[in-house]
Amino acid sequence: MTDVEGVLAANQAFYDAHEQRDLSAMAALWADDDKVVCTHPGWPSLRGREAVLGSWQAIFQGPGRNQFILTEETVSVVGDMAWVALYENLVDTGSTTAIAATNVFERQNQRWRLVNHHGSPVMTSG
Amino acid sequence: MTDVEGVLAANQAFYDAHEQRDLSAMAALWADDDKVVCTHPGWPSLRGREAVLGSWQAIFQGPGRNQFILTEETVSVVGDMAWVALYENLVDTGSTTAIAATNVFERQNQRWRLVNHHGSPVMTSG
Repeated sequence: MTDVEGVLAANQAFYDAHEQRDLSAMAALWADDDKVVCTHPGWPSLRGREAVLGSWQAIFQGPGRNQFILTEETVSVVGDMAWVALYENLVDTGSTTAIAATNVFERQNQRWRLVNHHGSPVMTSG
Repeated sequence: MTDVEGVLAANQAFYDAHEQRDLSAMAALWADDDKVVCTHPGWPSLRGREAVLGSWQAIFQGPGRNQFILTEETVSVVGDMAWVALYENLVDTGSTTAIAATNVFERQNQRWRLVNHHGSPVMTSG
């Protein structure tokens, strides 16, 4: 597996954990590090592993289920750090909402782990 | 200058270029690379140097002037890649708007250059 393939697999695992509401998979994916940052669309940035995983727990306990179609994924790897830019297209009844996302990964003990997730609503058609 | 200081200086230069509407400083800051991505608050992601710098040119030609107070900057450096999480507090007459931002830098020829900027409006008080 190339570095790019490894990063894409970790990126896909992040959305799989979200769709499946799998908190332990989500916890394993995030780096075990207090520098992690997660910015959900429209939210303030959550900092530190406890705040980040707490937000996922709350989201997974909420109503509805999220399903994503990922498009325009681009990957950049430099040494032991990588970032992915993509659209998370959230599929809902009869419509799709586009979220622009940036995911930053750090390779720790041969595993790509998430250190920053930033999602934002696309509000213009530009 | 430590790596963290170098990244913070590049990060500050990005906001200085914005405040001063200095397109050549902005152009020098972004990596000369088609993988660059810029997501302005509420916008779709712009990909590639031409699209990104074109957006800055349009913003600099628009009305008003932007002034920022940067808060809660945290820096993470791994080898030749780094990311900064912060709030861009946009100062306007009588009010301040918080933008959550992630900036990713890559060190190229001893210079930290921007490869990804992602800003998003903070819409909740959470």
